Amino acid sequence: MTTPIQQNLESKNVEYAAAFTKGHLALPPAKKYLIVTCMDARIDPAAAYGIDLGDAHVIRNAGGNALDALRSIVISQQLLGTREIILIKHTGCGMLTFTNEEAHALTEQTIGEQVRDELAALGDFQAFPDLEEAVRRDIELLKSRALVLKDIPISGWVYEVETGKVRRVV
Amino acid sequence: MTTPIQQNLESKNVEYAAAFTKGHLALPPAKKYLIVTCMDARIDPAAAYGIDLGDAHVIRNAGGNALDALRSIVISQQLLGTREIILIKHTGCGMLTFTNEEAHALTEQTIGEQVRDELAALGDFQAFPDLEEAVRRDIELLKSRALVLKDIPISGWVYEVETGKVRRVV
Repeated sequence: MTTPIQQNLESKNVEYAAAFTKGHLALPPAKKYLIVTCMDARIDPAAAYGIDLGDAHVIRNAGGNALDALRSIVISQQLLGTREIILIKHTGCGMLTFTNEEAHALTEQTIGEQVRDELAALGDFQAFPDLEEAVRRDIELLKSRALVLKDIPISGWVYEVETGKVRRVV
Repeated sequence: MTTPIQQNLESKNVEYAAAFTKGHLALPPAKKYLIVTCMDARIDPAAAYGIDLGDAHVIRNAGGNALDALRSIVISQQLLGTREIILIKHTGCGMLTFTNEEAHALTEQTIGEQVRDELAALGDFQAFPDLEEAVRRDIELLKSRALVLKDIPISGWVYEVETGKVRRVV
């Protein structure tokens, strides 16, 4: 069975592949940097953050969370040579709209008690009540980890989903 | 101090924001699906997978790893109403080029013994030796978790960085 979403992927990809000319790009990011940002549907990192194909690793998760991104960051730095980190959270983020306790309770209520162990293993959902404070805390977390390379630029930003603008926080 | 990469972000974003007309989009993804794919610099999910702004959550990490994406998937489904999962790994992935043991050893060698505890806490780097097998295993993992909604479409794909084409695996 093929869903409409799978059909969309297949048909749009046929167009993309027909015009594709970038099959020669190397594995390591050409501009040697990585971006951590949110999975939010309203963000198109390539367009909004000016990333050309092949230039940067793009890590995305709920909230643009640094801790969640740590495995990927270490791989990016140690195996693929990136030497700068840009972390961008955004206005109107879903992570501003609930607490960890509410999300766990809702999940258990919706699915049932059988998720309790998996929820405990998954841990904190990493919601945050204050956007700019969350950016600053994630940058501090990255700088405090021995696993993250020292003496490289690490900056924190906010993207405004209402205007398409980025602004630097730290 | 502003690095060339930060300057690029700022100047390209000024152009993006000047032409931006999508400030009205709602928080929940309009097409109610999520994509899990790799952070690889050669992938532009919006263009290659046909995602219009506002349509889908896009989760990206090293390898397009389902386990790493689990927190984000649960938030996407429970808090923001997505009801289909598309997982796409790709040819030429960095995760095919090393083993977990090699990556841990390299990281400790490069940074020093002080990373040992953090590496242990981070756990397996989730490298994989076989691409299509890795897609199948991640789909099985998602289907086996109580936390992931049942009776929704979950499909697994491969993106070819050499041709720009996607093909379905499972």
